[in-house]
Amino acid sequence: MALTRQDCERLDAEDPLAGSRDAFALPDGVVYLDGNSLGARPRHAAARVADVVEREWGQDLIGSWNTAGWFDLPVRLGDRLAPLIGGGPGSTVVTDTTSANLFKALAAALALQHDAEPRRTVVVSERDNFPTDLYIAKGLTDLLDRGHELRLVDGPEDLAGALDERTAVVTLSHVNYRTGALWDLAEVTRQVHAAGALVVWDLAHSAGALPIDLLGADADLAVGCTYKYLNGGPGAPAFLWVNPRHADARQPLTGWWGHARPFAMEDAYEPAPGVTRFLGGTQPVVALTLVGCGLDVAERADLAAVRAKSLALGDLFLALVEERCADEPISLVTPRQHDRRGSHLTFSHPEAYAVVQALIARGVVGDYREPDCLRFGLTPLYLRFVDVYDAVEAIADVLATRAWDDDRFKVRSAVT
Amino acid sequence: MALTRQDCERLDAEDPLAGSRDAFALPDGVVYLDGNSLGARPRHAAARVADVVEREWGQDLIGSWNTAGWFDLPVRLGDRLAPLIGGGPGSTVVTDTTSANLFKALAAALALQHDAEPRRTVVVSERDNFPTDLYIAKGLTDLLDRGHELRLVDGPEDLAGALDERTAVVTLSHVNYRTGALWDLAEVTRQVHAAGALVVWDLAHSAGALPIDLLGADADLAVGCTYKYLNGGPGAPAFLWVNPRHADARQPLTGWWGHARPFAMEDAYEPAPGVTRFLGGTQPVVALTLVGCGLDVAERADLAAVRAKSLALGDLFLALVEERCADEPISLVTPRQHDRRGSHLTFSHPEAYAVVQALIARGVVGDYREPDCLRFGLTPLYLRFVDVYDAVEAIADVLATRAWDDDRFKVRSAVT
Repeated sequence: MALTRQDCERLDAEDPLAGSRDAFALPDGVVYLDGNSLGARPRHAAARVADVVEREWGQDLIGSWNTAGWFDLPVRLGDRLAPLIGGGPGSTVVTDTTSANLFKALAAALALQHDAEPRRTVVVSERDNFPTDLYIAKGLTDLLDRGHELRLVDGPEDLAGALDERTAVVTLSHVNYRTGALWDLAEVTRQVHAAGALVVWDLAHSAGALPIDLLGADADLAVGCTYKYLNGGPGAPAFLWVNPRHADARQPLTGWWGHARPFAMEDAYEPAPGVTRFLGGTQPVVALTLVGCGLDVAERADLAAVRAKSLALGDLFLALVEERCADEPISLVTPRQHDRRGSHLTFSHPEAYAVVQALIARGVVGDYREPDCLRFGLTPLYLRFVDVYDAVEAIADVLATRAWDDDRFKVRSAVT
Repeated sequence: MALTRQDCERLDAEDPLAGSRDAFALPDGVVYLDGNSLGARPRHAAARVADVVEREWGQDLIGSWNTAGWFDLPVRLGDRLAPLIGGGPGSTVVTDTTSANLFKALAAALALQHDAEPRRTVVVSERDNFPTDLYIAKGLTDLLDRGHELRLVDGPEDLAGALDERTAVVTLSHVNYRTGALWDLAEVTRQVHAAGALVVWDLAHSAGALPIDLLGADADLAVGCTYKYLNGGPGAPAFLWVNPRHADARQPLTGWWGHARPFAMEDAYEPAPGVTRFLGGTQPVVALTLVGCGLDVAERADLAAVRAKSLALGDLFLALVEERCADEPISLVTPRQHDRRGSHLTFSHPEAYAVVQALIARGVVGDYREPDCLRFGLTPLYLRFVDVYDAVEAIADVLATRAWDDDRFKVRSAVT
């Protein structure tokens, strides 16, 4: 029997996370399915940013480094973020960009291997990884110019064949940015360690969306993003985690904030203990403060409930698409199995770009990814089951009426 | 004849920059002499940040990458900043931290030399440079592990002796963070080029405080800070400039934003033309927006007038200190000559830390730097001549009454 909007209203009424939607300021008339790209604004972020700009900066000026605790922000935010990734205390900082953090993490991992087993010079990643991650790996190994090789696999089934006595580091995105496919973090970590290599995880598309247990898996290093499922604001500073057993890890972007005695202004660099040594230059305090607002909301939610709702939203989405769009050339790209998918669904369609634009014009905001992908992010903290229902109604209507076949939906904008 | 407060009021009445003070929200009862560490808040920053958080992020969400122009922000802000450093269009970006930008700039410069003259493996800097700059140079050359040497000079008079056929790059802070000493940017650039080396300038303590002509001097690369004299907010993203004749320069932090086609998600990294290739990861948009507020004010000011007032404020400060504190153990560290000093004055005093705290307790906010330095930043856009008068009155009183000799002023806080 076909699912009705009333069925969805019933699911919302029973949703233990329904209350968390109130924590966000969402525009009227919009179904926002792009929280996997830019998370929505926590409601209290407006008052908080006014306070940091007007009082902390404007009134208290330089004194806020002490009185408002600016100096500890990267570490304090890291400690608040750690439970969401199973990181443990003192092992996470919020700083810089995901790209810069990946550069630092890979440099640290390669240096550990170089000291221990110099013949290990292969970096393994996924061919379909977020391109920046591959560019960063290449940028670093080109800079090192020591004969490193980048070896790309097509998926989990190929990983074993890429691990050998020359493998130094494996770096993977926990959830693929395009397809939404999820790697088994614990199993891959075990597999990589068994081969004598280290693993650097990019949690950009998983942190805040599903339970992660870095320490439980005994992973080596991880980086990730705070402006997707962690709702830290556009381009908010990223995070970096290092397993405490890698206390000797060194990174090359050695700025004052990572020094053991940052205000002594000593001639020689001595890295701070623990993850603090992964800090470098002065961080954008106002942006960091907004990361705190995102964490205020995230840390109140049970990640198991978040994950359960994410999968339920996804199952509903799939069932509705299959019911309403059966005759359209739209196909699921994301793996269907629960244990193989993250928190967004990707479909292919020959006119994907124009379809996304036509949907946005109707207030259903997903996004497009090359070459033919429609992405829909499912963010359990503020998305309702009725939103999914309404979104698929719009998709079905756009496809059935060929609403996308309008020139204005085919003009590519600067950011796609 | 002794200078009176009335004399200072007269100077303020005649000050062509007097009106710019209104552009800033300054706390009552404070003489702020730390704009060289954290610039004051432009008044309109409060409304602007509310707009970017509430409308651009909260309402328009992901669409703001296009509609609010987020995607072009680093380049647009760079083009607005360029006239303040004589940079020319298309050669400056606002991104990342000064430390990360210095890492990229030094890596690019060393790569240019490596390709052209591989025997050049010496990096020259100043022993008393901002420690992070030296740490970054060391972090980079340690990472490269190709036998680079860091050669430190004590000042301009020693530079010639450090330049030879092995010198690859000279990196200097235009104005020394501690002493306020100013290097002759044009002359040093000429001298470095004559020796076949490249120069990377750190303009952290000069950008916005005095006229700079990078293109006129034909400098190679430069980095700098937007949260000091450019009033971009605490820890605001930094800038990087590259001379257009170095179109081939490459940097290793190769993220999506520096790609020739950033949304094509191509497997291979191809650097964008020009300075855009120095971008990498996604930047903190809210913090970038505040940089724009600082530039709104800075770009309305004539930098020649800013410099003239900065020197006049400094001369007044010195004359008053010499008049009122003649019997105290306080000595000028900053070079006295106009062409050898930046926009802050540094004095030494055996109890410098406690003196600074006692002054802050009276609303005169300077700062302390190891081992015995009092720093006073002179920011012509919002500092009045009467402020200098009042500040020196407070200094004279604190010293004469030994107000600093109070235990509560001697307790070191986290940030000094």
